[in-house]
Amino acid sequence: MWHLNSLTDLILPTTLRILKPWFKRRASNTFSPVSLFTTSCGGSMAKTKFEYVRKFETDDTCLRNCWIVVRLDGRNFHKFAEDHKFKKPNDDRAIHLMTRCAQAVMECLEDIVVAYGQSDEYSFVFKKESNWFKRRASKFMTHVASHFSSSYVFYWKDYFHDQELLYPPGFDGRVILYPSDQNLRDYLSWRQADCHVNNLYNTVFWNLVLKGGLTNTQAEERLRGTLSSDKNEILFSEFSINYNNEPLMYRKGTVLVWTKEVETRTKNAKGSGEEKGNDIVVEKSVKKATPLHCDLIGDKFWEEHPDILMDH
Amino acid sequence: MWHLNSLTDLILPTTLRILKPWFKRRASNTFSPVSLFTTSCGGSMAKTKFEYVRKFETDDTCLRNCWIVVRLDGRNFHKFAEDHKFKKPNDDRAIHLMTRCAQAVMECLEDIVVAYGQSDEYSFVFKKESNWFKRRASKFMTHVASHFSSSYVFYWKDYFHDQELLYPPGFDGRVILYPSDQNLRDYLSWRQADCHVNNLYNTVFWNLVLKGGLTNTQAEERLRGTLSSDKNEILFSEFSINYNNEPLMYRKGTVLVWTKEVETRTKNAKGSGEEKGNDIVVEKSVKKATPLHCDLIGDKFWEEHPDILMDH
Amino acid sequence: MWHLNSLTDLILPTTLRILKPWFKRRASNTFSPVSLFTTSCGGSMAKTKFEYVRKFETDDTCLRNCWIVVRLDGRNFHKFAEDHKFKKPNDDRAIHLMTRCAQAVMECLEDIVVAYGQSDEYSFVFKKESNWFKRRASKFMTHVASHFSSSYVFYWKDYFHDQELLYPPGFDGRVILYPSDQNLRDYLSWRQADCHVNNLYNTVFWNLVLKGGLTNTQAEERLRGTLSSDKNEILFSEFSINYNNEPLMYRKGTVLVWTKEVETRTKNAKGSGEEKGNDIVVEKSVKKATPLHCDLIGDKFWEEHPDILMDH
Amino acid sequence: MWHLNSLTDLILPTTLRILKPWFKRRASNTFSPVSLFTTSCGGSMAKTKFEYVRKFETDDTCLRNCWIVVRLDGRNFHKFAEDHKFKKPNDDRAIHLMTRCAQAVMECLEDIVVAYGQSDEYSFVFKKESNWFKRRASKFMTHVASHFSSSYVFYWKDYFHDQELLYPPGFDGRVILYPSDQNLRDYLSWRQADCHVNNLYNTVFWNLVLKGGLTNTQAEERLRGTLSSDKNEILFSEFSINYNNEPLMYRKGTVLVWTKEVETRTKNAKGSGEEKGNDIVVEKSVKKATPLHCDLIGDKFWEEHPDILMDH
Repeated sequence: MWHLNSLTDLILPTTLRILKPWFKRRASNTFSPVSLFTTSCGGSMAKTKFEYVRKFETDDTCLRNCWIVVRLDGRNFHKFAEDHKFKKPNDDRAIHLMTRCAQAVMECLEDIVVAYGQSDEYSFVFKKESNWFKRRASKFMTHVASHFSSSYVFYWKDYFHDQELLYPPGFDGRVILYPSDQNLRDYLSWRQADCHVNNLYNTVFWNLVLKGGLTNTQAEERLRGTLSSDKNEILFSEFSINYNNEPLMYRKGTVLVWTKEVETRTKNAKGSGEEKGNDIVVEKSVKKATPLHCDLIGDKFWEEHPDILMDH
Repeated sequence: MWHLNSLTDLILPTTLRILKPWFKRRASNTFSPVSLFTTSCGGSMAKTKFEYVRKFETDDTCLRNCWIVVRLDGRNFHKFAEDHKFKKPNDDRAIHLMTRCAQAVMECLEDIVVAYGQSDEYSFVFKKESNWFKRRASKFMTHVASHFSSSYVFYWKDYFHDQELLYPPGFDGRVILYPSDQNLRDYLSWRQADCHVNNLYNTVFWNLVLKGGLTNTQAEERLRGTLSSDKNEILFSEFSINYNNEPLMYRKGTVLVWTKEVETRTKNAKGSGEEKGNDIVVEKSVKKATPLHCDLIGDKFWEEHPDILMDH
Repeated sequence: MWHLNSLTDLILPTTLRILKPWFKRRASNTFSPVSLFTTSCGGSMAKTKFEYVRKFETDDTCLRNCWIVVRLDGRNFHKFAEDHKFKKPNDDRAIHLMTRCAQAVMECLEDIVVAYGQSDEYSFVFKKESNWFKRRASKFMTHVASHFSSSYVFYWKDYFHDQELLYPPGFDGRVILYPSDQNLRDYLSWRQADCHVNNLYNTVFWNLVLKGGLTNTQAEERLRGTLSSDKNEILFSEFSINYNNEPLMYRKGTVLVWTKEVETRTKNAKGSGEEKGNDIVVEKSVKKATPLHCDLIGDKFWEEHPDILMDH
Repeated sequence: MWHLNSLTDLILPTTLRILKPWFKRRASNTFSPVSLFTTSCGGSMAKTKFEYVRKFETDDTCLRNCWIVVRLDGRNFHKFAEDHKFKKPNDDRAIHLMTRCAQAVMECLEDIVVAYGQSDEYSFVFKKESNWFKRRASKFMTHVASHFSSSYVFYWKDYFHDQELLYPPGFDGRVILYPSDQNLRDYLSWRQADCHVNNLYNTVFWNLVLKGGLTNTQAEERLRGTLSSDKNEILFSEFSINYNNEPLMYRKGTVLVWTKEVETRTKNAKGSGEEKGNDIVVEKSVKKATPLHCDLIGDKFWEEHPDILMDH
């Protein structure tokens, strides 16, 4: 018979708040005595003795009735873009991959009402009333960062057919709270204004370098101190580019909004009666995260999408 | 000539703290006037107008002179394990993949001195003195969550040869601060005790189901209220298993510590003199995150690795 | 000549953020070398060596664009009221003293737009846009708690003519943020509803005890499980009291709002010309914190005082 | 009979966490239905409807196993000192009053192990293990600020016999956490070093002004850029003052430590037996907060008071 000499059976508290999931099949109301005997320290230790350490966790509940924004930013994406030969100044594959990841985040997590992305960043707006994970800030930002990052690798091959992913990318995240609708709109306007400023600069810069034959340093020199009207002028007079005709996706970034689509499926009727055995067409309304490339700063977008700011 | 009528050139502040990376080649000391003209709202807007929204970001600096622990937990990993046909009660491929991701995190991020993983969770300990990202909690937890998650997909195929990854996984994260070395040791002991409790339960449970022919419900019933001595006895008398002979990796989880290895490379000598043109052997000391499966609760581990708790 | 052997003169940083006030007349742009020699430890120590401890202070900035409410609550005021023979169920002297202190707080600190008090508590509402002390929560709550408490002792004798103050009282404080006007109104409604619930109970209780001859325990028994209609009925049928005729100050508590008053002063004209040497009447508009005893729950109060919720 | 038409009796939750104290004699386990009818808004409202606002309170629990320091600073004390004609550079009455208030705080609140004061500031150190008010930072800082401030007015007349208190003073407060004993010692050393730096400056400054006949501006000019050795030299050569002979209270500030004293009282014996009716002497050990004026920076103080840093 199996025997254990120095066993001290200690009783664990009946409610263990952190239940490890996986294959653990602990009945929720079980009485769970355990024994830990650790050969290295020659004694038995109980989990209860250490559980006090959970009291060091701090509460990071987001203030209620505020919009919760999570913004992700790529880590060292300048180098990442170089290493993976992203086209300059904009790489459609990279932009579409970012958008695919953002869609995955919206469809996988709860309570996101709108998202906005540009360059190597994406912002996700959770509804004011969200009670997801009791509004814990750490849950919001890590779930978003984690899902976005695993999706980036998962969907890479769908967009970069000829370019292998060389190493796993990283994104950091933060949570910002906005009390009023105007604050939230101003946040999104700020990110879109940033998109404009950077894209105009980059468009001129890379035209000067790639078509104009300037070195990076020369292009920087050339652009130092220029107004945006100067940049528009350079584009027009030297490269015959009207900046306003550049693709909206580059100039405005990407907004993801929820749309409802009707999915149609053909199904073999299983019920009794006339239809039995015949194929029937089933319609189902499905919510999709749909990309738009439009202005967010003016009122038009918000008038066309009144549901975003509406109480949910 | 390119012309713009209603252009209002507005001056941006010369120091923009958030510089988007990617292809942006803004000279750091540049004078950067911009113009945003947005056709949809019919006016021009400047980024500066919206920049006040940055003041809503809160400071989440970790208290100094404390150990910073980031713990990740798999999201819905019970289902994920089912969907990907993980072996029960322990799947070596899954464990090794988790460890590979943790190594990637340790080698990619800064200031991690030790890590501990079991089941679908991993804890990373940053040194007390770390000033990485100015000790901002959000940076610590999102960087870890992001890198771990992208690595999980990136390295999946190295461990699951016959099992396709069906969808991107998710991990949440949290930051916990521990002021004293004892608190930190007790935290790690708590996680290892949790590993023991769960693994013993799962080992018996799955033996009852897979070899004993019980249903899940019957196995749960059988184990309700049992002491660990009872569980050891069931394993021994019914399945001839001495729990203490089960693999340490299952019973103790995985500790990742830094080890120094000497890497040897053969190089063609380029200098002048005798060695020129001949192959020379170059030795280089490399730090590696090395997995151990040992007890963390007793003093032995800490005596053998005094550098972990030492001031860095 | 005075001589110092082992003096090590160390240079302090030129900007010392914490300047102790009192009689310190340190020129702000001074170069301030200092030497500390401490006989007990036998060496010289510089303040700079210890200044790292300031980095342990945490940032507690209140989220912008939110109403900042500070609520004070008396510490052990049940005992304090007994010790100082407060009249039951309401003591006008105590209520007026509380109001006097709240006025002092409003007039002494900045940015308070309205205050509400009842029983031993007072709430102060700072305007959403306040940037007082950079919105640091600790500054708000400790300044309010401190000024209220020192005022309580300072003004005691103005209200309690025949009752000496036996010991200094204490009040604790907290900061609560409300993003919307409705949240703020609901907060104040909550406190006024609390005033009503407690005052009705106390009115019946003390009538039963003081006029009805019941012991405290008997009165408690009598009231257990009663509805407010029951309490109204007891007051009316047994003590001929119509609760609605009780003073508003007891039933509604006290609201402090800003009013403008014209102060008239007679002054001796000092200028040249006709008026010289004659008395002239000078009018000056003065803001005062004025107590009201009215309903805050309905719309009427807010319609009559639109300036409170208005952007400031 | 008293009658109420539109009464809606609504049930309050049986557990109301915030029980207002004073004269409220609500039985703790009572069933408390209430009705609020507010004539001004013409409807009935229940407190429950508004109670959601409590969810906006944030958790500000101090990290465990850290020293909790509350530091108070006088508000506008430069002006306060002028208005109340404090002697320069040090006023014994003001110092002793500060110390009296700090003693009141230590004896009235819980878990303070040591306090240190200088100029218009006082620091209170709560033991690492304190669980007072569940370690809520707001409770610590507001209770200290409130008690200190009310004590200041209460005890004023005991120290300022010939000087009336003109208005209530104010003190702000903050909470700082220190994980290690060394951090705590360095904090106190920092404050004592600050005391030294300021007191040396002020001593020279006021001697130059009061005895040397310089204006404030001239004295400032004279001291600009001087080393502490220069200041000592000025004191010695011009005013025959050896700074090291200045009172310790000025140079070192005030430390408050707990001491045990035996109080002796004469009591009339009430028991049976021989002693009945006779006077007996009763001894009682009493803890007192005792002021010291000594060096805190070296080891001596800490060796002489090992109980301060000891686990409590």
